[in-house]
Amino acid sequence: MRDEFKRTVASEAARTAEFLLKLPELDIPENAEWKRVLEAECYALSGGGKHTRSVLAVEIYKLFSGLGEVPDFVYEAACAIEMTHTFSLIHDDMPEMDDDDLRRGRPSTHIAYGTAMGLLAGDGLAILPYEVLSRLALEGKISFETSVKLIKTLSENAGNRGMIAGQVMDLWCEEKPNEAISEDFLRKMSKLKTGRMIIASCVFGALLAGASSEKIRSAEIYAENIGLAFQIVDDILDVTSTPEELGKPIGSDNERHKPTFADILGLDGAQNEADRLSKAAYDEIMKYHGGELLAEYAIALSQRNK
Amino acid sequence: MRDEFKRTVASEAARTAEFLLKLPELDIPENAEWKRVLEAECYALSGGGKHTRSVLAVEIYKLFSGLGEVPDFVYEAACAIEMTHTFSLIHDDMPEMDDDDLRRGRPSTHIAYGTAMGLLAGDGLAILPYEVLSRLALEGKISFETSVKLIKTLSENAGNRGMIAGQVMDLWCEEKPNEAISEDFLRKMSKLKTGRMIIASCVFGALLAGASSEKIRSAEIYAENIGLAFQIVDDILDVTSTPEELGKPIGSDNERHKPTFADILGLDGAQNEADRLSKAAYDEIMKYHGGELLAEYAIALSQRNK
Repeated sequence: MRDEFKRTVASEAARTAEFLLKLPELDIPENAEWKRVLEAECYALSGGGKHTRSVLAVEIYKLFSGLGEVPDFVYEAACAIEMTHTFSLIHDDMPEMDDDDLRRGRPSTHIAYGTAMGLLAGDGLAILPYEVLSRLALEGKISFETSVKLIKTLSENAGNRGMIAGQVMDLWCEEKPNEAISEDFLRKMSKLKTGRMIIASCVFGALLAGASSEKIRSAEIYAENIGLAFQIVDDILDVTSTPEELGKPIGSDNERHKPTFADILGLDGAQNEADRLSKAAYDEIMKYHGGELLAEYAIALSQRNK
Repeated sequence: MRDEFKRTVASEAARTAEFLLKLPELDIPENAEWKRVLEAECYALSGGGKHTRSVLAVEIYKLFSGLGEVPDFVYEAACAIEMTHTFSLIHDDMPEMDDDDLRRGRPSTHIAYGTAMGLLAGDGLAILPYEVLSRLALEGKISFETSVKLIKTLSENAGNRGMIAGQVMDLWCEEKPNEAISEDFLRKMSKLKTGRMIIASCVFGALLAGASSEKIRSAEIYAENIGLAFQIVDDILDVTSTPEELGKPIGSDNERHKPTFADILGLDGAQNEADRLSKAAYDEIMKYHGGELLAEYAIALSQRNK
């Protein structure tokens, strides 16, 4: 099973990357004076990320649709999530935020294209998902109702009360490095900053499969647990990994006085908590026939080393 | 007629401002650690702009619905356009773009709240319209189909091939101050940067009224013409107005070596072109019974002094 699981995740990640650059919205017109912004967006999107979010959407779709064959519109919708995620990374790396010159071993978008273009490329990718998701309905590939539900799911989880709220809390920590951060604050911040987009991904898969509200709720519970586990493991790796393994500098959170789960719970405590959360996700998804792959994915997330 | 027209425009602008701050999406939770980003967004939204875009959406709605009474959902949808417009202003004012400390006589959002919060507030307002427009359908106030069409209209006109493309062209001018800019380039840039959001506004009104595709096309033609007239008059005012009248520094385009219609066509030539465009918009909308107000609005836009 383990090998099959790894092969599936890798192949779905690769399919997402392929779909991303085939989208008509990302087609770069040869003679357009403004094409540089699309080039910057494609640069950011093709950074070789793990595409965790799309893989989750696709696998939840498979689970609840019962279909092994995944229609193109599922990948296209999953690409909308990758765009939102990538827009947040571009803006996060900018000087006013984390000021990171490196992302996945390559110059950050604002380093490669300049800060003004970084700002605009992030803006472009923040809006683009809504072009894609509305187009899918206007082309008759999904219903108008499903399109609206996907758009509500993505905008709510990415917006002021979701991912952006998490970024604001993160910023607050950076601006007040001497304030003690409670475990509660850190959990809330992580659930917003990374967790909400993981939830959006899993709900996308369920909505695209036309799943019942009970199944949508299961997708949310699974996502909440792996989302927090994911962040905790990120914090652990920021201490224990090497720059080569991670593709970015090590210890950067500590340099910036950002609180981490490793600080508050200790390395062992943090790993135990990640394992506990992964197990909860595992149990939730194993309620369903065919949930083995997602269950194993939950366990693997808490044991990853990059 | 002239007084009635001015009263209507002022009262619709005021109603938009009222609706904006009553939207559930902009309700600020007392104890949320992240509420500062919503405060920054409300600050930017309540800057006392002319709300030209919402007024256009509302008036086109009245024209094509034949109704004098405008339902709340029309104002709520128009607010989505104001949000997109405001997000672009927040990011435009930032140091990597125009670096403007002042907007409508008040400190720009990134000056009042810091650059990181300016970045996030812009991001929040870039996403928020899609929460609002999808909510309206999920609440049954508009159909799923109309919601999807509004979302496609807004995202396309604001995105990479619309407003953002115009910003990229604007940036190109700033980075190459010694390149000669052609009238053609300047027209294309203006049609994208300001024109596309004016088009979105008028199409919003038509879609919300359930107008025929012929009427939607008329709304676009009207919008294209007043959109370009609007930008040309902006360029004229940047030379001829006073900081008090305009609420921002005068001559700022020239200081930044930005090409303007006043440079390329001369002040008189620019005014003639604005008048010609306004007249084309006037003629298009006067095809319809009840078009007098919008027709007069077109003429007034080219003759405004602030």
